[in-house]
Amino acid sequence: MYKKLIFLMLLLSATGHFCIAQKVIEYKTWNPVNEKTSVVGGQGWHSGLKDYYDRLPAKAEQTARKVVWNLSKNSTGLNLRFKSNAAEIVVRYQVTGPVQMSHMPATGVSGLDLYAKGPDGQWLWSAGKYSFGDTLVYRFTGLESADLKERTYTLFLPLYNAVKWMEISVPKQSAFTPLAPVAQKPIVVYGTSIAQGACASRPGMGWTNILSRKLDAPVINLAFSGNGRMEKEIVELLPEIDARLYVLDCLPNLTGEAFTNEIIKQKIEDAVAHLQSKKPGVPILLTEHDGYTDGGINQERTKAYERVNAVLKATFAALKAKGIKNIYYLSKAEINQDIDTMVDGTHPNDIGMMRYADAYEKVIRKIK
Amino acid sequence: MYKKLIFLMLLLSATGHFCIAQKVIEYKTWNPVNEKTSVVGGQGWHSGLKDYYDRLPAKAEQTARKVVWNLSKNSTGLNLRFKSNAAEIVVRYQVTGPVQMSHMPATGVSGLDLYAKGPDGQWLWSAGKYSFGDTLVYRFTGLESADLKERTYTLFLPLYNAVKWMEISVPKQSAFTPLAPVAQKPIVVYGTSIAQGACASRPGMGWTNILSRKLDAPVINLAFSGNGRMEKEIVELLPEIDARLYVLDCLPNLTGEAFTNEIIKQKIEDAVAHLQSKKPGVPILLTEHDGYTDGGINQERTKAYERVNAVLKATFAALKAKGIKNIYYLSKAEINQDIDTMVDGTHPNDIGMMRYADAYEKVIRKIK
Repeated sequence: MYKKLIFLMLLLSATGHFCIAQKVIEYKTWNPVNEKTSVVGGQGWHSGLKDYYDRLPAKAEQTARKVVWNLSKNSTGLNLRFKSNAAEIVVRYQVTGPVQMSHMPATGVSGLDLYAKGPDGQWLWSAGKYSFGDTLVYRFTGLESADLKERTYTLFLPLYNAVKWMEISVPKQSAFTPLAPVAQKPIVVYGTSIAQGACASRPGMGWTNILSRKLDAPVINLAFSGNGRMEKEIVELLPEIDARLYVLDCLPNLTGEAFTNEIIKQKIEDAVAHLQSKKPGVPILLTEHDGYTDGGINQERTKAYERVNAVLKATFAALKAKGIKNIYYLSKAEINQDIDTMVDGTHPNDIGMMRYADAYEKVIRKIK
Repeated sequence: MYKKLIFLMLLLSATGHFCIAQKVIEYKTWNPVNEKTSVVGGQGWHSGLKDYYDRLPAKAEQTARKVVWNLSKNSTGLNLRFKSNAAEIVVRYQVTGPVQMSHMPATGVSGLDLYAKGPDGQWLWSAGKYSFGDTLVYRFTGLESADLKERTYTLFLPLYNAVKWMEISVPKQSAFTPLAPVAQKPIVVYGTSIAQGACASRPGMGWTNILSRKLDAPVINLAFSGNGRMEKEIVELLPEIDARLYVLDCLPNLTGEAFTNEIIKQKIEDAVAHLQSKKPGVPILLTEHDGYTDGGINQERTKAYERVNAVLKATFAALKAKGIKNIYYLSKAEINQDIDTMVDGTHPNDIGMMRYADAYEKVIRKIK
């Protein structure tokens, strides 16, 4: 598939974005959409998509609520992998939504993150110079390697924006080989704004992306800000992905009064039953609400998360008592948030994201 | 001093910002500038100021470089303390600069952070609802306390913006008592963008503010983004503050070629000599560059911080060899940054800020 890569040669003037001193550098440019088969990592569906960087298949537009469908176009959890020996990698792209939020910077909402594997298999990271104009540009430089002929890179896409198109350019003489997504059964996460990545400072710090690096394993992010409601129409899509583990982390979006204890219990039971009927033997991890970090002052906030966690705990215990196997539990205590791990009391900062990733890593390594 | 508080009564309409359902609430409003003596915590000078929330005295405008003077108007490290039993605290203020940066959200650049002491002396945190309009508003609600008659609050001011004015309102019937700054000798930090707070997600996560909470001690922030160059005109101001410890954390702004090894060495020696001549016996902590977290890929970046750290290490060793006492050292290894602790390879995210605070806490607890 890589033999038929379409490389566009770009001759960029010394006055343009790609100027290095007075030297004119010729670049070759790769656009992933021109590949015969999808090269998007962290994507649950590689065919039947409406747009290239979507997280749900086109058919979901008919079944999912409109807001869920729209959020599924945010590229959180998606990545592009490639090998290159280039000293410079330039990524140009456009997004569809506002580039930043008041509590989450542009680098997290709309930015990119470039990680690489070092000679000993350890993760390395490159600091891109970014500009958030009409076209967004990330420019990674100083990538020469004394230790490796070519590095294997993973480029994480924006957490809270949709990518319209993306092109990656390297100097013409550099090697550049797109890589297929990691060929392992993925962990599939159905979650809320937190799992979508609010409010990480950059894409690599969303907890599902941290987890994928910690485990060296693909994680598929099906998290929808404010709308991870453990809904039938989403749950029914999950078994289409041949997962090694399903994570249901929806409680932060079920604290509203409309979601009575009985409704939450039913949602959990239905989700577990459906997944186990379609994917017998595949473990399911049920996650508590991680709390509100202003709960030490605001008692109402504490009550809200304690209620839903009590429902999950009781429902989980009842399922276990009925002999349901392959279900696992991640508690608020294990996630271990505190007053300095969130930006607004609801959404983790990078500390809180790392706490999530650490907790997930620990419990997942024990499963099977 | 508190008897002469000027409380303005504000009757706010049910259609205004302060609307709670249909109930009309009367507020009383406090403006710190009306106090006879300054109530601004974390401020090195309480008199001789040009503007109320400045970090340097007015006379510094004549001696400091213009950019340093301008940055000294950013309110990083400043705080307001008060006791209150109010269920709701509303802070209105205006700032002079852009509310956000691409790699640092508005909540960090221009936002506020409200911490409180719980019944057992532990720190608590309140999540404000914010709006970043022409006038910025933070509204803290649900503050009723079952355990305490009144809570003691610390309100941290914006890290990367200057406060033009600020007013704090509570319901008219609530108790509200401004508190004087903590009466302890402060730790004085002379630093760069990192110590100024880039890129914390909110003011409480700047490392000097984290440190002040960890130690329950005042920390005065004299950090100037891109301009913490260990300059004579700033060093000469430091002894005017009756400090328990001076921290010189300027190396991240001394990596440029203009700062030769000899110049850096001279700056360190001069700063130590000046502080010890004016404040004999007061310890000085010298801090290494914490590194660039893309240094694993970009060798040039690694060389840059290794050079300045080698100079500091050698200079420190030479000072010790000469018998200079009361100087201490904080190394890059102790600060312990890694690829996931910065947003752009230079500026810590909240994880990196916590690493700094942890490292400083550890070394400072050993001093004296």
